[in-house]
Amino acid sequence: MKKLFVFIFFITTVAFAQNEDTEQLREFYDLALNEGQSYEWLRHLSNRIGGRLSGSVEAQQAVDYTKRQLDSLSLDRVWLQPVMVPKWVRGAPEFAYIETAPGVTNNVPICALGGSVATGGRGIKAKVIEVQSIKELETLGKEKISGNIVFFNRPMNASLINTFQAYSGCVDQRYAGAAEAGKYEALGVIVRSMNLRQDDFPHTGSMSYGDTPVNERIPAAAISTNGADFLSATLKLNSELNFFFKLNCRQLEDVESFNVIGEIKGSTKPDEIMVVGGHLDSWDLGDGSHDDGAGCVQSIEVLRLIKKSGYKPQRTIRTVLFMNEENGLRGGNEYAKVAKTKNEKHVFGLESDAGGFTPRGFSFDCSDANLKQAQSWASLFEPYMVHLFVKGGSGADIGPLKEDGIVLAGLRPDSQRYFDHHHAENDTFEHVNKRELELGAAAMTSLIYLFDKYGIISE
Amino acid sequence: MKKLFVFIFFITTVAFAQNEDTEQLREFYDLALNEGQSYEWLRHLSNRIGGRLSGSVEAQQAVDYTKRQLDSLSLDRVWLQPVMVPKWVRGAPEFAYIETAPGVTNNVPICALGGSVATGGRGIKAKVIEVQSIKELETLGKEKISGNIVFFNRPMNASLINTFQAYSGCVDQRYAGAAEAGKYEALGVIVRSMNLRQDDFPHTGSMSYGDTPVNERIPAAAISTNGADFLSATLKLNSELNFFFKLNCRQLEDVESFNVIGEIKGSTKPDEIMVVGGHLDSWDLGDGSHDDGAGCVQSIEVLRLIKKSGYKPQRTIRTVLFMNEENGLRGGNEYAKVAKTKNEKHVFGLESDAGGFTPRGFSFDCSDANLKQAQSWASLFEPYMVHLFVKGGSGADIGPLKEDGIVLAGLRPDSQRYFDHHHAENDTFEHVNKRELELGAAAMTSLIYLFDKYGIISE
Repeated sequence: MKKLFVFIFFITTVAFAQNEDTEQLREFYDLALNEGQSYEWLRHLSNRIGGRLSGSVEAQQAVDYTKRQLDSLSLDRVWLQPVMVPKWVRGAPEFAYIETAPGVTNNVPICALGGSVATGGRGIKAKVIEVQSIKELETLGKEKISGNIVFFNRPMNASLINTFQAYSGCVDQRYAGAAEAGKYEALGVIVRSMNLRQDDFPHTGSMSYGDTPVNERIPAAAISTNGADFLSATLKLNSELNFFFKLNCRQLEDVESFNVIGEIKGSTKPDEIMVVGGHLDSWDLGDGSHDDGAGCVQSIEVLRLIKKSGYKPQRTIRTVLFMNEENGLRGGNEYAKVAKTKNEKHVFGLESDAGGFTPRGFSFDCSDANLKQAQSWASLFEPYMVHLFVKGGSGADIGPLKEDGIVLAGLRPDSQRYFDHHHAENDTFEHVNKRELELGAAAMTSLIYLFDKYGIISE
Repeated sequence: MKKLFVFIFFITTVAFAQNEDTEQLREFYDLALNEGQSYEWLRHLSNRIGGRLSGSVEAQQAVDYTKRQLDSLSLDRVWLQPVMVPKWVRGAPEFAYIETAPGVTNNVPICALGGSVATGGRGIKAKVIEVQSIKELETLGKEKISGNIVFFNRPMNASLINTFQAYSGCVDQRYAGAAEAGKYEALGVIVRSMNLRQDDFPHTGSMSYGDTPVNERIPAAAISTNGADFLSATLKLNSELNFFFKLNCRQLEDVESFNVIGEIKGSTKPDEIMVVGGHLDSWDLGDGSHDDGAGCVQSIEVLRLIKKSGYKPQRTIRTVLFMNEENGLRGGNEYAKVAKTKNEKHVFGLESDAGGFTPRGFSFDCSDANLKQAQSWASLFEPYMVHLFVKGGSGADIGPLKEDGIVLAGLRPDSQRYFDHHHAENDTFEHVNKRELELGAAAMTSLIYLFDKYGIISE
């Protein structure tokens, strides 16, 4: 008989908790969709400030603006965390053309890759070797490559449903292409934009020279997908064509910038910290609305929704807007370093850095037990069309926090349109849908609420 | 021992079938994503033809164009099915302003609702009664309404995750507002656009006068969401303001048009017909890319993918591009009528009429047994992020085919952006993403393949 009572008590408690969670999620979603602030914050970041490359005036304006917004939320603490960041500047617009005969030229849209050296004032004009991979350089050897421009043209794989996988399958050309082609004495590299769509936007992004000595570094630019196809088709007709390009970028001295941080102190476990964030810097070509203005305003909205709902978290919930994800990850590294120095205990991290699109779910970098717990909440998310609770990556900025026992997670929005805009001139505010952005903020808040309420499972 | 053999045979067979299905779906998706045709067909429909209101030259061009495309697919049969359709024309652009004092005016964006009568050459100027519902008219009564313009301003409910539910909760104002307000001697009605976004586009759509005698019909127009909020705010300051609007639309005689039909004959059960379709007509303000050019080109693509993959369907697969869904449903009704006359046996219908966005799944209007069978295929769709297999509506055009035993289904794309564009000037090609469109076509083809292969379960 006693067992029966215990059992009834147990199922009643579970049912009550489930019901309480259902109502709490509904409240977060209602607040986000009916009086959400994220979209207006993003409008300011995008349209009043614009692209926020590390070390730029715009990046500093974004620091000031987001700090002001956090200040307005009556949080327990808001502060700036100093961090030195690289300062790379694009300079005058880049320029390129294909020359099929003396004086017969076609301009093509290019942009310098972030971190590239300039071409020098007279630009570079040379013949073009088209390759599909870094590996192919080996086969061609110095004999064929030396004195030419290497054109990396492997497209993203359209068959992959998760477009981030298609990106991963190509991005080595952009990141390491110049360092590798430089070993064979190429004069420069042109890389097909990481974009699944055919259009005229060149997509920038970070690249690295690795340990290439400064005087052996060769310039690197992205070409739009239409430009890449045009160049490839023209090469088939005339392999002796010349390609001209001119880049005017410069790497300056590091400058001081900041991570922007706000927190709600935990009621019963204030020393256990749960971080939610995005990165405040962006590339300079568009206004960084999807990458990653969206993640920043969603992360601020998480704190606002928690405050507004009246939910009192047990643990400390901290929003961190990381500086310099794009070309250095200095903000993410600094945050983790300071946390370690201060002996802070981080138990959870969530990053939104995959665009402000309809959220499809989360991927988790954590123990199986914590993943299983997250999956047990799937039915709570079902009414909001959030279905994905899978093992996977989290986010670049929270990555440095990784240690045993921590749960790291990444918001996974629908990825189909992300690379249409990524790092390009058309990553702009009008391509963000208000509701899609808000649904992401509500989903993030819901996940944080559940992990705060039910705790992180230790091994 | 024999039992064990049978069991092993059974699981081997199931595993083989599952594997075969996995490969077949992968092939449909690969073909759709790597060499899909739907996007180029839509480009033509949208950019070369444009809005395709029933009875218009553009509607006829769309009939001719899509028939040519079906002809090019080497199908077993392609034909046009004649149907008489209503012909309503918008005439010169509509015009409206708010007058807060003599000569002090603000223009606001409006458009006539489809089927509305005109205002007459001098327009209508009157005071405005704002209401939130048709029911409110009753409370106000003739005394307050007579001689005024009724302004229906109930917004779509932003809390609803499925935006079609929010639409259903409001559309009575648009559909029946004029007929109802007319009973109280209103001079005209202005209806808040069915749009969850704040913008300046008025959204048209069908309305009905019911049994209102012709000489008692009052004109009806939609006002943009920004315009509606402005009007409402201005009314709060000055309830005596005048509203002026002028509509120049006309209802002409019915004209002949066509459903466009193509089919692949079934190999073993040719008399069992599976229909897939969308509607070829659209409203006239935009180019009808999402509503429902997308559904049309996806439905043509289904046949192309089946042919290209080499899969030989057991049943007859028929693509039907229905005419006149928007303001009459004559195509859907005619198709069902002819099918009945010819004693055709339709076992399955699938419609795509919710935009060319990332497919989230399907809703089914069918027996529980068939729904359960569809749900048993969910794991096959999981790699494509298609999660929704639920009871629900199918599509307006295939609705008239409903009878015992038939499975009717509707593609359910992500609905967040749909009503930003629905029936408005900004339902245009550039708002359709190629991959999202193609994923829909592949999901539709996959569902048809599975129902063809495993059959429809009879009660």
